[in-house]
Amino acid sequence: MEDVQSGPAGIAIPINRVGIRDVAMPLLVRQRHADASGEAQRTVASIDISVDLPAAYKGTHMSRFVEALQYWTDHSDALDYPAMKQLLEDICHRLNARRSHVVFRFPYFLSRPAPASTIPGLMRYACALTGELNASESPDKPAKPRFTLDVTVSVMTVCPCSKAISDEGAHSQRADVHMSVGMTGRIWIEELIEIAESSASSPVYTLLKRQDEKFVTEHAFANPTFVEDVVRNVAAKLKAHPLVSGFCVEVESHESIHPHNAFARIEG
Amino acid sequence: MEDVQSGPAGIAIPINRVGIRDVAMPLLVRQRHADASGEAQRTVASIDISVDLPAAYKGTHMSRFVEALQYWTDHSDALDYPAMKQLLEDICHRLNARRSHVVFRFPYFLSRPAPASTIPGLMRYACALTGELNASESPDKPAKPRFTLDVTVSVMTVCPCSKAISDEGAHSQRADVHMSVGMTGRIWIEELIEIAESSASSPVYTLLKRQDEKFVTEHAFANPTFVEDVVRNVAAKLKAHPLVSGFCVEVESHESIHPHNAFARIEG
Amino acid sequence: MEDVQSGPAGIAIPINRVGIRDVAMPLLVRQRHADASGEAQRTVASIDISVDLPAAYKGTHMSRFVEALQYWTDHSDALDYPAMKQLLEDICHRLNARRSHVVFRFPYFLSRPAPASTIPGLMRYACALTGELNASESPDKPAKPRFTLDVTVSVMTVCPCSKAISDEGAHSQRADVHMSVGMTGRIWIEELIEIAESSASSPVYTLLKRQDEKFVTEHAFANPTFVEDVVRNVAAKLKAHPLVSGFCVEVESHESIHPHNAFARIEG
Amino acid sequence: MEDVQSGPAGIAIPINRVGIRDVAMPLLVRQRHADASGEAQRTVASIDISVDLPAAYKGTHMSRFVEALQYWTDHSDALDYPAMKQLLEDICHRLNARRSHVVFRFPYFLSRPAPASTIPGLMRYACALTGELNASESPDKPAKPRFTLDVTVSVMTVCPCSKAISDEGAHSQRADVHMSVGMTGRIWIEELIEIAESSASSPVYTLLKRQDEKFVTEHAFANPTFVEDVVRNVAAKLKAHPLVSGFCVEVESHESIHPHNAFARIEG
Repeated sequence: MEDVQSGPAGIAIPINRVGIRDVAMPLLVRQRHADASGEAQRTVASIDISVDLPAAYKGTHMSRFVEALQYWTDHSDALDYPAMKQLLEDICHRLNARRSHVVFRFPYFLSRPAPASTIPGLMRYACALTGELNASESPDKPAKPRFTLDVTVSVMTVCPCSKAISDEGAHSQRADVHMSVGMTGRIWIEELIEIAESSASSPVYTLLKRQDEKFVTEHAFANPTFVEDVVRNVAAKLKAHPLVSGFCVEVESHESIHPHNAFARIEG
Repeated sequence: MEDVQSGPAGIAIPINRVGIRDVAMPLLVRQRHADASGEAQRTVASIDISVDLPAAYKGTHMSRFVEALQYWTDHSDALDYPAMKQLLEDICHRLNARRSHVVFRFPYFLSRPAPASTIPGLMRYACALTGELNASESPDKPAKPRFTLDVTVSVMTVCPCSKAISDEGAHSQRADVHMSVGMTGRIWIEELIEIAESSASSPVYTLLKRQDEKFVTEHAFANPTFVEDVVRNVAAKLKAHPLVSGFCVEVESHESIHPHNAFARIEG
Repeated sequence: MEDVQSGPAGIAIPINRVGIRDVAMPLLVRQRHADASGEAQRTVASIDISVDLPAAYKGTHMSRFVEALQYWTDHSDALDYPAMKQLLEDICHRLNARRSHVVFRFPYFLSRPAPASTIPGLMRYACALTGELNASESPDKPAKPRFTLDVTVSVMTVCPCSKAISDEGAHSQRADVHMSVGMTGRIWIEELIEIAESSASSPVYTLLKRQDEKFVTEHAFANPTFVEDVVRNVAAKLKAHPLVSGFCVEVESHESIHPHNAFARIEG
Repeated sequence: MEDVQSGPAGIAIPINRVGIRDVAMPLLVRQRHADASGEAQRTVASIDISVDLPAAYKGTHMSRFVEALQYWTDHSDALDYPAMKQLLEDICHRLNARRSHVVFRFPYFLSRPAPASTIPGLMRYACALTGELNASESPDKPAKPRFTLDVTVSVMTVCPCSKAISDEGAHSQRADVHMSVGMTGRIWIEELIEIAESSASSPVYTLLKRQDEKFVTEHAFANPTFVEDVVRNVAAKLKAHPLVSGFCVEVESHESIHPHNAFARIEG
């Protein structure tokens, strides 16, 4: 049968990325553990995969992306940086490409103890791991992939202005901290979660008994924060992290006194 | 050209609704005014239109829905109950149908004064007007359409439990009040907005200067409400409304101490 | 500490449902197997849990929903009908409620062979299992829960009208089949998937090599279907299923010649 | 009352952007007309507004964004480049900021004739106009804003591979063309729509009578295109446009034979 894709391009412009989006599959993700036992967490992922396409070719071969992904699933233990590197290299090889790009989006679960009762509750965090490989220019220098880890963490903010000017109370709300982090070595999802949860008026919790609710309320009111405060707290911790090579952090607060959100962003 | 749709159905089962979804257009919506001047508001709508299809026919004629909508736009002043009735009747006529069903979804805007400074701020409310016409069984009884008005209103809630048990403060959050109301006469969108905004700890506002923020904070803390309180307050007012024939109200609160939402629902 | 929730309601209206929405956790779901080995699939879920609240009480105790869910996760093998029944009963017991309602929403994965090469490819299907328990009126009659299974399946449709009137070709598109099914006995997710995938012009596939793409194209063009045909095909099969007590099926087609969708719905 | 925002920052890091998101209001947008009459279209918008914040200040004054927007609405005719520039300058002035950033997102409507019957049908296009102002370093050089126009256009693609290898037919689908364009002079929304609609197998239409459906089907099958072809066609036209200073175009195709989408992207 004719291979239309390998024919000449009608218009000879190189394409930065061509591929498939939102391919779904169960996924194992490597977890941080004190004892480095390397246990993995079972979750599900939505995946984007793409390569570059030189000006000379009409099309890429889309089914090979799915084959690469299936092969990788069958032959790797869990998603981590070395496994992502193998997938990126295999895609370049199968598609005859010089650049490959993969995004895994997945929910990640962690058990967090309530602050007073210490009863554990399970939290879900939206995460994405992106890998990009650019083929080396010379055979002596092996290509090195670049990784970006995205984690979104919900937190609680109590408004310092509302607290200062009101005879009683202060408005509070849920806010989302979005972190996107480039790295020079392995950074765990757990590290970014801890950075965000320690940067606002309070973490949020799935399970709170009455003594916990009292604790959270009083603790949050003792630590009022604007979105500006939260974004700076997170940025300062990311700047201080020895393995972070670059970051973008955005905090979006679902203001309880407004129909719209407030947001603040720092790129570093 | 062959009219495939008018051919016989392969499987002779009647279809409850067949039509098109998310057709878009600018829309004029009738507004309530003290002087009954009947002014209309310009907004944009997403529209679903459908009819029933008897067991005997293979398909409906989808392009006629768009023609009916364009004709209606050209020949009606603004969306209100009489204009909706005309559209429902015209659809039955054009499609040779016994039942027609139309949903207009649109944002509706109202200016609301800030509570202390009285500076006006524009609020957006998500609305839907649904009309359904069932052809009369006898020629003596004209068919009467049924209307449902849906309005979603954001409000603020302060938690009564958190306030009662904490030495200072109480968690607050934005909550959404969804009302779906059947009627025996004309009910204005403005009436449902007022019902929702008066049923929680406080309304929310687009524009608040510092004295307004102080007012909202103190007012809300003086009126703590659970989602259960808000849903009952709204339900009691809808029950008392002389033109409401049935309703469903749901309040969903974006709890600032949890990653999940709380909700409560009353059908009446 | 004060138990505000157990205090008297300000307005004595019973609440149909009060609870929490979008609680997240990993989930095991029972799979159909030829040998009835009862294997389970690991996925993740978003869960809504609620109970009724009598007119006399101000509020429910939200943290008990999370406790019930955690207890259930620790003590049940996998999501199936008996396990859902246990959860519904436990919620009524913990919350002192007469009615409980739970929805589990989760992606479900199945491997499907390509039609010509038979190479397997993994498919994701959006599912929901809803359980509702109403306490029995008399102690002699035990309460029986009602279950609803929702499955959404993407398929391909080729337009019969476009094919009949055009000298060459016919427009095709992806369509989504949404089935919501009540039951008198155990119905597997796999059964609903097979019903939907056999009711359109063709199933869709994650992995298609060139000979598969040729097969799918030719097979689909030999079996053109309107949304009306697909919805009737599915309805006829659900009507014929001995364990289906009621259903609603809706087919929504992402028309490739229009910016809007076409849809058809049968309730049976 | 205390001005908490003007107090010193706890952590002295400058913030790239701080502001509000998804403020809603009706909007007039300038339309292209042959006679340059400058007519404007009424639609509704969702708006993001932000400024930078120097390291020294704790917070910005969020209510001033809403005041700037309300003042602008009252004093400008319609959204176009000069009006956006005024808003950007006013925001810098009111917030004592050196950089301001505004995004208007809105649906835009155009009437398009059916290809055979020429009956007009209304189309909706998702658009965004972004403006960014950086205060000049020297008083002699006035600050010049940068504008980006985003337009998304749905089109139809027929697969060249499927057509070449199949005895009959070829799969087709709706695809979305997302264009993001920087400019050195005024570019109309209508220009980007025309570029996208002329770059695929066929435009899509809201209203098609039978002769139109025949025309679209045959025309599309005579012009099969991969996402790679569409993205190159659009990129070539944007490169050739004298006022385009930079662009990113992405085409995402809702493959009718797959559950996932294909996409291609060119940055130029």
